Amino acid sequence: MFQKRTHTCGELNEIDIDKIVILNGWIDRIRDLGGIIFVLIRDRYGKTQAVFDSSYNNALYQKALKLKNEYVVSIQGKVRARPEKDRNPNMFTGNIEILATNLEILSESETPPIYVNIEEDISENLRLKYRYLDLRKERMQKNIIVRHKVMKSTRDMLSAEGFLEIDTPYLTKSTPEGARDFLVPSRLRPGNFYALPQSPQLFKQLLMVSGFDKYFQIARCFRDEDFRADRQPEFTQIDIEQSFVEKEDIFALTEKLIKEIFEKSINYKGLEIPFPKYTYDEVIQKYGSDKPDIRYGMEFIDLTAYFQNTETNFIKNGIDKGLILKGFVVPEKVDNFSRKKFDNLTEFAKEQGSSGLIWIAFDKEIRSNIKKAAAKEINILVEHGIMREGDILFAILEEKNKIDQILGQLRIKMIKEEFEKKSGFSIIWVTDFPMFSWNEEEQRIVAEHHPFTMPNLDDLAKYKNKDPLKIKSQSYDLVINGYEIASGSIRIHKKDVQEKVFDILGLSKEEAQEKFGFLLEAFKYGAPPHGGIAIGMDRLVSILVGEESIKEVIAFPKTASGTDPMTGAPSEVSEKQLEELQLALKKTNKSEMQNDSRS
Amino acid sequence: MFQKRTHTCGELNEIDIDKIVILNGWIDRIRDLGGIIFVLIRDRYGKTQAVFDSSYNNALYQKALKLKNEYVVSIQGKVRARPEKDRNPNMFTGNIEILATNLEILSESETPPIYVNIEEDISENLRLKYRYLDLRKERMQKNIIVRHKVMKSTRDMLSAEGFLEIDTPYLTKSTPEGARDFLVPSRLRPGNFYALPQSPQLFKQLLMVSGFDKYFQIARCFRDEDFRADRQPEFTQIDIEQSFVEKEDIFALTEKLIKEIFEKSINYKGLEIPFPKYTYDEVIQKYGSDKPDIRYGMEFIDLTAYFQNTETNFIKNGIDKGLILKGFVVPEKVDNFSRKKFDNLTEFAKEQGSSGLIWIAFDKEIRSNIKKAAAKEINILVEHGIMREGDILFAILEEKNKIDQILGQLRIKMIKEEFEKKSGFSIIWVTDFPMFSWNEEEQRIVAEHHPFTMPNLDDLAKYKNKDPLKIKSQSYDLVINGYEIASGSIRIHKKDVQEKVFDILGLSKEEAQEKFGFLLEAFKYGAPPHGGIAIGMDRLVSILVGEESIKEVIAFPKTASGTDPMTGAPSEVSEKQLEELQLALKKTNKSEMQNDSRS
Repeated sequence: MFQKRTHTCGELNEIDIDKIVILNGWIDRIRDLGGIIFVLIRDRYGKTQAVFDSSYNNALYQKALKLKNEYVVSIQGKVRARPEKDRNPNMFTGNIEILATNLEILSESETPPIYVNIEEDISENLRLKYRYLDLRKERMQKNIIVRHKVMKSTRDMLSAEGFLEIDTPYLTKSTPEGARDFLVPSRLRPGNFYALPQSPQLFKQLLMVSGFDKYFQIARCFRDEDFRADRQPEFTQIDIEQSFVEKEDIFALTEKLIKEIFEKSINYKGLEIPFPKYTYDEVIQKYGSDKPDIRYGMEFIDLTAYFQNTETNFIKNGIDKGLILKGFVVPEKVDNFSRKKFDNLTEFAKEQGSSGLIWIAFDKEIRSNIKKAAAKEINILVEHGIMREGDILFAILEEKNKIDQILGQLRIKMIKEEFEKKSGFSIIWVTDFPMFSWNEEEQRIVAEHHPFTMPNLDDLAKYKNKDPLKIKSQSYDLVINGYEIASGSIRIHKKDVQEKVFDILGLSKEEAQEKFGFLLEAFKYGAPPHGGIAIGMDRLVSILVGEESIKEVIAFPKTASGTDPMTGAPSEVSEKQLEELQLALKKTNKSEMQNDSRS
Repeated sequence: MFQKRTHTCGELNEIDIDKIVILNGWIDRIRDLGGIIFVLIRDRYGKTQAVFDSSYNNALYQKALKLKNEYVVSIQGKVRARPEKDRNPNMFTGNIEILATNLEILSESETPPIYVNIEEDISENLRLKYRYLDLRKERMQKNIIVRHKVMKSTRDMLSAEGFLEIDTPYLTKSTPEGARDFLVPSRLRPGNFYALPQSPQLFKQLLMVSGFDKYFQIARCFRDEDFRADRQPEFTQIDIEQSFVEKEDIFALTEKLIKEIFEKSINYKGLEIPFPKYTYDEVIQKYGSDKPDIRYGMEFIDLTAYFQNTETNFIKNGIDKGLILKGFVVPEKVDNFSRKKFDNLTEFAKEQGSSGLIWIAFDKEIRSNIKKAAAKEINILVEHGIMREGDILFAILEEKNKIDQILGQLRIKMIKEEFEKKSGFSIIWVTDFPMFSWNEEEQRIVAEHHPFTMPNLDDLAKYKNKDPLKIKSQSYDLVINGYEIASGSIRIHKKDVQEKVFDILGLSKEEAQEKFGFLLEAFKYGAPPHGGIAIGMDRLVSILVGEESIKEVIAFPKTASGTDPMTGAPSEVSEKQLEELQLALKKTNKSEMQNDSRS
């Protein structure tokens, strides 16, 4: 049929000299020097130079003149050393070339609409429309290969630890909690719908009730949200659950897994475990975020004590009223900050809900918007080593329950705008999240994680009746470089605890039964203590390969509006298909909605 | 929180005697002898006996009196040898027991609606409703563990061979060919729908165009068919595609993979590779089926020659008119066949479209419905060793293009009704399927596999214009024990061949573009020769564990009508959800359809 390769395009070098070989691949580059043509032939494994020399074989040279970029060819030839001056030490095959003795054109290529062999700045739409060409790029090939290695090393490690991969249904039941479900109409039961799972949460808990003891799955999850920049309607999760454990067991397992993934997928061996642990309250108070990137420092400092006796009236009055003065130091950046910039930042702080922003820049001399009023206190701060020459200190005077959030926003802005992107990895645990939060829109208490999360039992006893928002839970997030990479919890396995939680959520037995019926039913027949974690695999891979967007690590992602420019999905379907599902489109609004195009 | 296990329930034996241990698990059985209670504590790994002895610790004994089956407990105790007479050589832990020193009840269980520790004949609906209890059974645990091992060994082997696992979208575009799609309405583009993939076929071919060279994926696939007994709306496929190959490469790879799976998942080392290869024409002529179970023999024999000079008129006339006399021998079963049974089988043959059935039973003397008319020919058959004492020969006189199909049905009926289920595995390749077939319903030629299958090029040249149904393709099935386990082909990678195929299918360029646009577009930019295979993983696992139904090897399967009695899926959804999707139910037919309940 065709001359099959004896080697890949990435494996020949000097020890192969004089061998007769056949390579199959794509034409990556062509240099026609007149009478002699050099081509690079490319496959997933590398590139090799082949030479068509008219003085050696003119007929073959004439055939090679027809070649264009991205043609698929089979080249037979003899491996020979490149002349000294033409060697390329950056390529594994850079010291040899193939003197072609035969050429088969396996398929031709029109001029591709996007370049494969150079990085260019083209629209996302064009890249996704021709994704099969985009994926030929070295960078994209590398990303997809790392993704494969992440999946493989995950499965290797968890299987070696006795975990079973168990695949759970994708056609399941719509649940009222959480994000919006994608629905799948049933044809055999018109008027009824399956839902695509937002996660295998309920199934993995049922598998614990079944006694599988250690479960994992690399599972696709689906959420019909209003797609934001880096959200995908379908995403991939490394889902883990284990019985007869406490949270420390999940920490240790996850740490071992993450270390293994870093080593096996990108050969990074520097991760130190265990990862540092912070409670939710700690990170909020120190960084104003539940997923801080602590590589950038800038921990918050409570400055109230230094200003206890200030003569600056607005600060003194504020402190007397119970406000707090808190801030953070941006180190060694004073040269970047003009008066104008401080004004803009003050505006920003106000937008975040602050009444103002105090800034102190330790330039050759002090610049500050409270320089006159609080010169004494500024001196004290300097004396205490809180700030040094070159630093800027930002502070705000605010109520305790608002201040961290505002400072947190400012800190993130500083990280984005004032610092080069740091290399390396900062990995921390954040633990003890609040069990409940107040949903302003629905005017009720909701579960922060989900209602099966085990509360801290001391908190439950102490705060159940008077202040349930103070109850913390046995939940945890893994944060890498400021991204929430994984999230999990110990689950409730006892009826009385579950009932108390439903009670706080204001769910009657009947409502609870209707919403979570089959899980509650299952728990009647012997549920083991269990807990687990789910790792956002797309984001993890993007961090490993240093990509900003998860789209760069998904073979066929969707646009921000959920479309696929390549296949044209989603698309209209035939009347017959709708008829079979007993569905009708509401035509009244159709044209109106379609004008609201977001792709 | 609770006393965590030091060991599993399957790992203690005599070398552990005198150790203080803690076990966590479910109460599997309780024997109360009055003053002393024996319980079996169970987890995924095994069972261990624990003893609560009132003379040793009466308070603990009293507590143990509360235990019931399926309670989850933590038992602390000391390992001791069982008395000689109480040892159980069939259990790994059968020589020891735990003298309990502490007992924690981790959670209680109501009386479970189905038994966990005995096999009983209960309805599928009950089993699926309480699937989490059904899955506690030893048999189901084993099945799911084998499934895990099949997936793991597949990934290990293919990764070691340089294949990359690449996950492709589940929200994709509805395609007009093939089975019926499940649709997913888009909220952001009302009136438009995603489709769940029937297989990753198009994506895996695009990945070849992208140069990924060797791809695999264990992928969920979705088909909205009228569910038959052992069909599932979602099923799992080991999907493989490779570039720069011919079909022999796919054969060799698949054989190596299947051998590896058998060894690693059920420790079966007897598979001999390569597997025998039969063309489609061969298996049809020999067994009347494209997926014969050849363990049962009963190959067809053309008897026409033996009856060339018969004086039996109806046979002679038939042969003269060009009919064929063909049959097969059921060996050593003559005692099972009464006259009545032969009459019933004649009826059966007629239902299959035969004009009659000839039967010859070599009992102590010959019994046959053509005994008088064809005594001479029967003697010749016996003399030629075609049948021996104890055998039955069935034959029919029929047109060449109908005869194999009818005999095939009869052969399958014999296998089902007359033989014990054979053990062991018969694995064969069936190759060279017809490229096209005639669709009676639509009155047109359709692609037998799919329109990207590479035809045998000689056939294409020879038959394109005059008899396209004679064109065979470079396609192949793997058949195990009469089940089609895998199916694949070499794909077309050249434009001119693809155009000829579309031509035969009667597709204009515009229609082809509309139906397969993005794949054809991709093929313009350098498609490598490629081919692949897809293995039906659910069926493969069911064969490995000896289960008749694939439901026994899927953790959470659906009923034949596509419902899940546990979750209640599919179910009605809220008006708000439909509103968001701009969909309306056609209420007129709703109640009518819902009465047509099939679960």
